[in-house]
Amino acid sequence: MNDFHNELIAAAYLSRVAEPANIPLWMLINELGYIDAANAVYRAEAGPELLSATESRRECIDPQADLDAAERNGIRLITPSHSQWPHFGMSALTAAGHRRAARWRGGERKRSILGELIPPVALWVKGNVDLATVGVRSIAIVGSRAATSYGEYVASEFSYRLSQHDVVVVSGGAYGIDAAAHRGVLAADGVSVLVSAGGLDRPYPAGNRQLYERTAATGLLISERPPGMAPHRQRFLSRNRLIAALGSATLLVEAARRSGALNTARYTRELGHPLLVVPGPITSAMSQGCHALMQRESDPANLVTSVAEVLAYCGPMSAEPDGVGGAVSVYDALDPIMQAVLDGFPSQATVNDRELAALSGHPLLAVRSALPVLVDAGLISHDLDGYRLLRASRTLDRRTGWSSNGPAQF
Amino acid sequence: MNDFHNELIAAAYLSRVAEPANIPLWMLINELGYIDAANAVYRAEAGPELLSATESRRECIDPQADLDAAERNGIRLITPSHSQWPHFGMSALTAAGHRRAARWRGGERKRSILGELIPPVALWVKGNVDLATVGVRSIAIVGSRAATSYGEYVASEFSYRLSQHDVVVVSGGAYGIDAAAHRGVLAADGVSVLVSAGGLDRPYPAGNRQLYERTAATGLLISERPPGMAPHRQRFLSRNRLIAALGSATLLVEAARRSGALNTARYTRELGHPLLVVPGPITSAMSQGCHALMQRESDPANLVTSVAEVLAYCGPMSAEPDGVGGAVSVYDALDPIMQAVLDGFPSQATVNDRELAALSGHPLLAVRSALPVLVDAGLISHDLDGYRLLRASRTLDRRTGWSSNGPAQF
Repeated sequence: MNDFHNELIAAAYLSRVAEPANIPLWMLINELGYIDAANAVYRAEAGPELLSATESRRECIDPQADLDAAERNGIRLITPSHSQWPHFGMSALTAAGHRRAARWRGGERKRSILGELIPPVALWVKGNVDLATVGVRSIAIVGSRAATSYGEYVASEFSYRLSQHDVVVVSGGAYGIDAAAHRGVLAADGVSVLVSAGGLDRPYPAGNRQLYERTAATGLLISERPPGMAPHRQRFLSRNRLIAALGSATLLVEAARRSGALNTARYTRELGHPLLVVPGPITSAMSQGCHALMQRESDPANLVTSVAEVLAYCGPMSAEPDGVGGAVSVYDALDPIMQAVLDGFPSQATVNDRELAALSGHPLLAVRSALPVLVDAGLISHDLDGYRLLRASRTLDRRTGWSSNGPAQF
Repeated sequence: MNDFHNELIAAAYLSRVAEPANIPLWMLINELGYIDAANAVYRAEAGPELLSATESRRECIDPQADLDAAERNGIRLITPSHSQWPHFGMSALTAAGHRRAARWRGGERKRSILGELIPPVALWVKGNVDLATVGVRSIAIVGSRAATSYGEYVASEFSYRLSQHDVVVVSGGAYGIDAAAHRGVLAADGVSVLVSAGGLDRPYPAGNRQLYERTAATGLLISERPPGMAPHRQRFLSRNRLIAALGSATLLVEAARRSGALNTARYTRELGHPLLVVPGPITSAMSQGCHALMQRESDPANLVTSVAEVLAYCGPMSAEPDGVGGAVSVYDALDPIMQAVLDGFPSQATVNDRELAALSGHPLLAVRSALPVLVDAGLISHDLDGYRLLRASRTLDRRTGWSSNGPAQF
């Protein structure tokens, strides 16, 4: 092929052309859209860093074959323009990505800012649940593969009971805590999201094939890697940021001192999501990583002992549980771009996305990402004429800390 | 008997005449000394609160019989003038007592300030160890009677290994965590202090009689109650403040939501001592009280998982472990009266206790309590001529934060 004319094919191409998640590629897509970005990469019309990251695969990808393989396996590809894109679940990751992009533009191009806290190019999805709803009321449950019976009991018991409270459970597909979390959801007829490190047609480990199938039947399998791709170490690390992003908070059940789950814990912290940790016997190596996180001098993890405590962290846009100190502001819980878009709204007029981009001073694509979240949150309405600030959002009570005059200062 | 002429007999009388610990009685002893205070109480020449607290026993005590019973059982009675009085171990309790006495003088006489955080009138002691050394490098280990095998394992393992590091273990005499802590010390040939709620001739529970005997042989039994007194609920609560005071820190191993050990934890906090808590499985009721203390919004307890972490809290006068932030000042660790006495020292001259009372502006008895601690801490010397600021204490390095010019400001 020489030219991309179809967004889905372009997205399939871009989802395979570079890994891990790549700042210049994500910026290019934000700037040009999928089709023009794919053409630019394919024609090697990009900056040196992106050319270097894509040169090995640039000319040898068959995106139509990936899409065909996906279709044969009941897998669909979604991008931010798809109605099922999890804008809300991705909002912290999107905000982190914009911060990294700004540093990139500012000349900071060291490996550290290349980090992975940017959204995926696209998501491969299998299952009948609307992914857009995930992340609004959800919990990431993670922990060691070599879990103890105590850890597996806690993971499945908590996921069972959280499911009964309509919380979506997000986890990986490994043995141990991951599998126990999904089993708890399945027992409760709830919804879980299994985020895979490789292609969704390649369940890993093979012993969990049935778990993948049952989860696909009642929940969702997702991956940023196209069908056929094997799970590698780097893909697991990259995958972990999606688990941390899609949970309103992360619950770490068991982790040894050097567990992969600690990587998810770190992403959780970097995304500004609450990190909840289950204590265990000090005689258990599988609880040592958990205890160490609670002992951190700065920003120690929250010790939790009950489902009720976890529930307080799973509410929509509630970054912290309601305590005696009062609720967290809805406005404060929005990422900076969403705040800017909301601040940009005229008090009465209906406006479209391009006008809001001008009003807020943010790129059109960022504004388009923000709008569905603001609609979901009941702050704005959307009809054929455009977007409009909701009357309700002008009279939000003290608890929300936000009125039509802008954010309250407290 | 009509008149007290002997301090020991007076102390024996006063140790039985009122309970729980009584602010006006303690103030009277501080003011008049034991003999005159005993005569005043016996003759009903005291304020109405003290008369009320002593009227039921005032005239029907036979202190010589208590001392005889003590002698028959190898028990001795000590007061602050005794060389074995644990001035250092009692320093936080003494400071708390002076704060309450000041509020009493200021007219605050509600039940709450009658509280129990004042030193005992005297201590009944059994065993061959010098009690004065206890509290300098010590740990209170407490927890539930109905402990699990996990809790008992942790208590005995920690007390065994802390003993090997010359830490004195302080605990009660109950089944469960208390007994496990003493057993660990006995296995290590270390020193433990068993603080009893009743008279030392009445081991309670009876099933721990052998534990009492073994501890008396190698460590110490102590009680503020005279021989023959039964252990009652109020005496257990009152006893707990002595356990909290004698430990440099308190290690809570297991506690249910409503455990008596939580009372010791509260005293620990009120005395300003570090509270260390061992986590456990969230599925264990015996760890629920521990987890709740770690979840407190203000001043949460410190989660500890290893003997090394506990050791950092057991050092002499180190209220907090040495961290990156540097060591705690020796001066800061002293109670306000000790600080005032130290500040009052002339830089070169030798002075006596009465001169120091005038120099520091504190009562003679308080100064006499402070001096042995300052000697033990190596800050002053004592010989037949009196007390003298040590040269070393003028050149204390940065770590101590104190020099002959007074406390450093940092």
